Amino acid sequence: MTSDTYFANGAEVSLFEQAYQRNLPVMLTGPTGCGKTRFVEHMGSLLGRPVVTISCHDDLTSSDLVGRFMVTGGDVIWTDGPLTRAVKSGAICYLDEVVEARHDSLAILHSLTDHRRALYLDRADEVVHAPTEFMLVCSYNPAYRSSLKELKPSFRQRFVTLPMTYLPADREAQVVVSESGVDTATAQRLVQCATAIRTADRAFHFEPPSTRVLVTAAQLISAGATELEAADACILAPLSGDGAITDGLREVAAASLLGADAAGAQPH
Amino acid sequence: MTSDTYFANGAEVSLFEQAYQRNLPVMLTGPTGCGKTRFVEHMGSLLGRPVVTISCHDDLTSSDLVGRFMVTGGDVIWTDGPLTRAVKSGAICYLDEVVEARHDSLAILHSLTDHRRALYLDRADEVVHAPTEFMLVCSYNPAYRSSLKELKPSFRQRFVTLPMTYLPADREAQVVVSESGVDTATAQRLVQCATAIRTADRAFHFEPPSTRVLVTAAQLISAGATELEAADACILAPLSGDGAITDGLREVAAASLLGADAAGAQPH
Amino acid sequence: MTSDTYFANGAEVSLFEQAYQRNLPVMLTGPTGCGKTRFVEHMGSLLGRPVVTISCHDDLTSSDLVGRFMVTGGDVIWTDGPLTRAVKSGAICYLDEVVEARHDSLAILHSLTDHRRALYLDRADEVVHAPTEFMLVCSYNPAYRSSLKELKPSFRQRFVTLPMTYLPADREAQVVVSESGVDTATAQRLVQCATAIRTADRAFHFEPPSTRVLVTAAQLISAGATELEAADACILAPLSGDGAITDGLREVAAASLLGADAAGAQPH
Amino acid sequence: MTSDTYFANGAEVSLFEQAYQRNLPVMLTGPTGCGKTRFVEHMGSLLGRPVVTISCHDDLTSSDLVGRFMVTGGDVIWTDGPLTRAVKSGAICYLDEVVEARHDSLAILHSLTDHRRALYLDRADEVVHAPTEFMLVCSYNPAYRSSLKELKPSFRQRFVTLPMTYLPADREAQVVVSESGVDTATAQRLVQCATAIRTADRAFHFEPPSTRVLVTAAQLISAGATELEAADACILAPLSGDGAITDGLREVAAASLLGADAAGAQPH
Amino acid sequence: MTSDTYFANGAEVSLFEQAYQRNLPVMLTGPTGCGKTRFVEHMGSLLGRPVVTISCHDDLTSSDLVGRFMVTGGDVIWTDGPLTRAVKSGAICYLDEVVEARHDSLAILHSLTDHRRALYLDRADEVVHAPTEFMLVCSYNPAYRSSLKELKPSFRQRFVTLPMTYLPADREAQVVVSESGVDTATAQRLVQCATAIRTADRAFHFEPPSTRVLVTAAQLISAGATELEAADACILAPLSGDGAITDGLREVAAASLLGADAAGAQPH
Amino acid sequence: MTSDTYFANGAEVSLFEQAYQRNLPVMLTGPTGCGKTRFVEHMGSLLGRPVVTISCHDDLTSSDLVGRFMVTGGDVIWTDGPLTRAVKSGAICYLDEVVEARHDSLAILHSLTDHRRALYLDRADEVVHAPTEFMLVCSYNPAYRSSLKELKPSFRQRFVTLPMTYLPADREAQVVVSESGVDTATAQRLVQCATAIRTADRAFHFEPPSTRVLVTAAQLISAGATELEAADACILAPLSGDGAITDGLREVAAASLLGADAAGAQPH
Repeated sequence: MTSDTYFANGAEVSLFEQAYQRNLPVMLTGPTGCGKTRFVEHMGSLLGRPVVTISCHDDLTSSDLVGRFMVTGGDVIWTDGPLTRAVKSGAICYLDEVVEARHDSLAILHSLTDHRRALYLDRADEVVHAPTEFMLVCSYNPAYRSSLKELKPSFRQRFVTLPMTYLPADREAQVVVSESGVDTATAQRLVQCATAIRTADRAFHFEPPSTRVLVTAAQLISAGATELEAADACILAPLSGDGAITDGLREVAAASLLGADAAGAQPH
Repeated sequence: MTSDTYFANGAEVSLFEQAYQRNLPVMLTGPTGCGKTRFVEHMGSLLGRPVVTISCHDDLTSSDLVGRFMVTGGDVIWTDGPLTRAVKSGAICYLDEVVEARHDSLAILHSLTDHRRALYLDRADEVVHAPTEFMLVCSYNPAYRSSLKELKPSFRQRFVTLPMTYLPADREAQVVVSESGVDTATAQRLVQCATAIRTADRAFHFEPPSTRVLVTAAQLISAGATELEAADACILAPLSGDGAITDGLREVAAASLLGADAAGAQPH
Repeated sequence: MTSDTYFANGAEVSLFEQAYQRNLPVMLTGPTGCGKTRFVEHMGSLLGRPVVTISCHDDLTSSDLVGRFMVTGGDVIWTDGPLTRAVKSGAICYLDEVVEARHDSLAILHSLTDHRRALYLDRADEVVHAPTEFMLVCSYNPAYRSSLKELKPSFRQRFVTLPMTYLPADREAQVVVSESGVDTATAQRLVQCATAIRTADRAFHFEPPSTRVLVTAAQLISAGATELEAADACILAPLSGDGAITDGLREVAAASLLGADAAGAQPH
Repeated sequence: MTSDTYFANGAEVSLFEQAYQRNLPVMLTGPTGCGKTRFVEHMGSLLGRPVVTISCHDDLTSSDLVGRFMVTGGDVIWTDGPLTRAVKSGAICYLDEVVEARHDSLAILHSLTDHRRALYLDRADEVVHAPTEFMLVCSYNPAYRSSLKELKPSFRQRFVTLPMTYLPADREAQVVVSESGVDTATAQRLVQCATAIRTADRAFHFEPPSTRVLVTAAQLISAGATELEAADACILAPLSGDGAITDGLREVAAASLLGADAAGAQPH
Repeated sequence: MTSDTYFANGAEVSLFEQAYQRNLPVMLTGPTGCGKTRFVEHMGSLLGRPVVTISCHDDLTSSDLVGRFMVTGGDVIWTDGPLTRAVKSGAICYLDEVVEARHDSLAILHSLTDHRRALYLDRADEVVHAPTEFMLVCSYNPAYRSSLKELKPSFRQRFVTLPMTYLPADREAQVVVSESGVDTATAQRLVQCATAIRTADRAFHFEPPSTRVLVTAAQLISAGATELEAADACILAPLSGDGAITDGLREVAAASLLGADAAGAQPH
Repeated sequence: MTSDTYFANGAEVSLFEQAYQRNLPVMLTGPTGCGKTRFVEHMGSLLGRPVVTISCHDDLTSSDLVGRFMVTGGDVIWTDGPLTRAVKSGAICYLDEVVEARHDSLAILHSLTDHRRALYLDRADEVVHAPTEFMLVCSYNPAYRSSLKELKPSFRQRFVTLPMTYLPADREAQVVVSESGVDTATAQRLVQCATAIRTADRAFHFEPPSTRVLVTAAQLISAGATELEAADACILAPLSGDGAITDGLREVAAASLLGADAAGAQPH
């Protein structure tokens, strides 16, 4: 899937555009691999703005975002971080999994997400005012319920929140076909397999398989793997950290693939 | 809302002025988005003093506040931090969410908040005496009851404490109109929706929706979103970190909007 | 209250003088705002010694106290910290809330508090012998019973311990009058209000109101606030971190003020 | 075992090749010493790519992976880390026990494991695009169930996952012979001993003995140790951290070796 | 008490001499203020060796003990720490409260406390062999039972352990007289007061009063304080961190002093 | 005991030689002071290789082992750590109490303990291949069951594990005689005392007395101490961190010594 193909799932495109138009920051929520990153890239393309993506993690400091002083030739020179560069260039800055970042990284975003729309570089004693084109987008996966970290309500209320979810089955199959080159029947079987697991998932506590893993499986199939091998390696095996996929779940998955298989749709 | 419009809710303006007149520091308490930051900006404008805002977080050190030595050309030069600059320039220094700061950051404030009114820069071996114009204002949200951190009583007793809360419904609707350009009926429906959730909130443990999110929702509406879309994205979705808004709460919210809708007030 | 007015409460002045005479360090204990800092300033004035005050906090290192090496012109120069400067100049060094300091900060005090009366600057390979005029005074508030930190018994036994408490009511009212300019009747009502809360406090777990907050309230009153407004902002609101002052307590407070009010003593 | 001998156990070779062909990263899972590292070296040899191995641990920072600025002659020069060097040279980069790494190390891998296939060196303000030949391989042992750390589902879903396990007994004996020079009968007894413990292991909570420890034991035997001595030192003693190997387990092991011994197969 | 007066309590002097003679390190254990530091100073004087005292705390690093590289004139020069200086000069090095030190500080002592008697300065790539005169002495107070830290058995077994305790009452009174100048009857009353509390202490969990606090109290008395004032400030008040000395305990103490008082022995 | 006297207890010498011959790393396990360090020194002497000993602790970083960059004359020069020096010089590198080291220190050992036998200095971009003479030996005491740290099974399986224990009584007495100069009867009584405590130890949770403490006690005796004094100071007192040796245990110990004493064997 290149960044100029996007299969919209609801009103998210128009709401994103309206937020952009009114200079409001956006928060995307939803399960892993439901297309949040692709959506941001699509909107960047639609609005004609570059996208600067920053993967957040719990060692990410505010200095990593805004910049730091560095020694050059005996002097100390301020060097902008990726957020500061994004603000200055009027880009869409996308903070992926923002809940993982350290608190100082989140505090630095406050002045960017209210009427001030400015970045205060206290250490450099500089205020960077965001141009109209600049937009801040964050994402997080609310399904990580066990996480010790949670976004503070006061932080969440700074954003227009767009919940995202998986595509409907036929749309998802289209994506799988266009990304991997497999035929539609194979793509449909993979989607059916994913849907079966996603439904069963409420009982288990697995993170359900994403569209991404279906594409990956399809790519392996088009490279010569059997559907069962590909589903095992890309869909089932990553489900659980300790390999304890129940036999029941594996049967559910196999049924989706082999049921079709018996109908002669198996491509090799 | 620009910083020269402020809708006072009680005696907070006169008490703030009296504290300023007697050189006393002020602590603002209250829920997220009830207008603490706006109030400080308003008072700065009223008293003719610039406002220096510092968002506190748990990696904020005293050096971030008062300054540090930096290497320049082989020598070490002291560089003032934002608090020191605020003291020297006689500004109103506003420490937002001060409870988040590290203890060394709070200790540095002691000598500023008693009869000494001075900042002791031990590392630079310098004492900065605050001019009469300087004022320290802090804020925190006492609703974060689960927080591990709490302000020490001895710290709280150093401040004149002004509790703040939401505006009455009609005043809040006025703010929404003036900030977003929607008509009064729409603003009233949004306020009614927020009030319904704020009332229900005692049972749930959500941070109630702020005036800010009402303004944001209204801005989306004036950019073309339906009232339900805007309320969903700006009011309901941020309520809970795990997306588990009960259907009951969503009905409460929808009733405020659709009840009015049925009466023909829906603007699009 | 300027530092040359002190209202003694017991034998603390003579015991402090005897400790000074025998070169013994002193530990002051007692609730927030009962006058520990003022007492040290008073004794400094009485004994003709300058007072160096250091507010302790849990990021305070021994280097912050004794000094550190700093790079200047490519070389490393030792720079004395405030404790070292106090020892060298024969000052009274006052470590406020010493229980908050890190353990290395406390260990550095050992040799100052026994017969050696010397500061060992291991990093600088220097021993600073305290002149006879030097005196170490520490304080802490034993009411913070929930604190994880506690002073080690071996540390406490190094000090002459002087427990301090609030002034008797009439003395406290005198202080309020002399600090704020309100009339004696108002001051007495404020003291009566504080006494009522201090008595009720054993049931609640609030840090009782200090003399300092009475002075602050009186200053607001003399700047134009009503007694109830001032008592609310300065005495009641800081009592609890989560704003959960019981109505009962508020009634207790109001009774002290309004009872007098009914008698016609209300100044505005 | 040199890196050009590999005894395949299933479809892992073809699936690895298909992943390489489609530019997909691979995750190997399985018990300690089942041959993950050897497999990666084998595939490197098969695909004609060098292998860069990085042992992960919980102090491994992203700077350790991608590089850092270093002072040289007064200036600051960026120096590539092993991951950056692997990307630039189109190597197979193998992160052994990736679950041990710090989160910032994992976040740096995101852009390498999706359609971007690029390494964002934020601090150096450089983007390194991976050549087609570059491949990322990670491994972890899902049996460490007690570990506090777990790979996030969103991270696991970025990989084609190939579960690995022990070789079948006759293949494993072949490896032991070729690696150590012992005769086949001895190798079979060692494998039988290991298999007995691996079966018993479900009840105990020991990490089962790896092929590696069988090879080590065989090497000691060919250097003159008795089979029992070698099995004790290499197979039984490392099983448990506190030496509490039950007598039952030791009997199980001895039976495998001595049963054969009684049949006259003992080589010394 | 100057360092040349020591009142021996058992065989500790001869055992210390025997350990010194055989180059064995010594560990002193016992309650706060029973005279461990004085004993080490006494033995240093007896054996004609200087004593280097290091107060341990939980931020003490091995670099603080052995030394570190420091930048001087652009180069890096190794600077010995106090332990290294003690080893090189053949001093008695006394690590007070060694249990408080960080583990790397303890590990550095291993090679000094076995047959190697050497200090390995890994960072400086240097081995310092201790001269015969060098002796290592450590102390800790085993009464801190609640401490999270404990010395490892392997560490404790490296030392000749000499348990120390309080002097018998008449010897302790002699010390009080010689240190403070009070008359013998006063000293005896103070010792009797301490003994009463030490006995009661098993029920309470107070650290019992040390000889040091008796001397301090006696010094205050000879400076003019009453016995009750001095006992309160020096003996009773430091007993507990939260001031909760039971009335019963205070009566026990007063009885020792006032019983005598009634007999006319009160000196002022 | 000089490093050329060693009293072997089992097959550990031949197994160590066989491991050395096959380039396999060795792990020594066993209680404190059973002779692990002496054994390594003995084998170094036997194999004609120098021994580099590194005491591990929880602040030991991989940089402490392999080396670091240091500033010299404005440039940054790599300086080898003790492990790197040991590898380059073909020494036996002995990591004492390896379980205490930080995880990055253990990860650096992986490539040294498998077929690669190389040290990857990632920061210096250098690979040091170990010569045939190099050998890695680690030790740990599995009796520290309460420790939070444990060696990972995958790490333990990299080593030939040689469990060590105390010498038999007569051999241990010989060691005591040869190390201290006491007569055989005294040595036997000390060993009998230790054996009695080691047997009782299963009920108590003391680390049993090592051969080292018997030698120390004997050295004190030959310097003039009585057997009871020496046993108290060297054997009993270090048993427990809080001094709570039961009277029963002390009787057990005394019986071993005094029983013999009564028979006239007491040397002074």
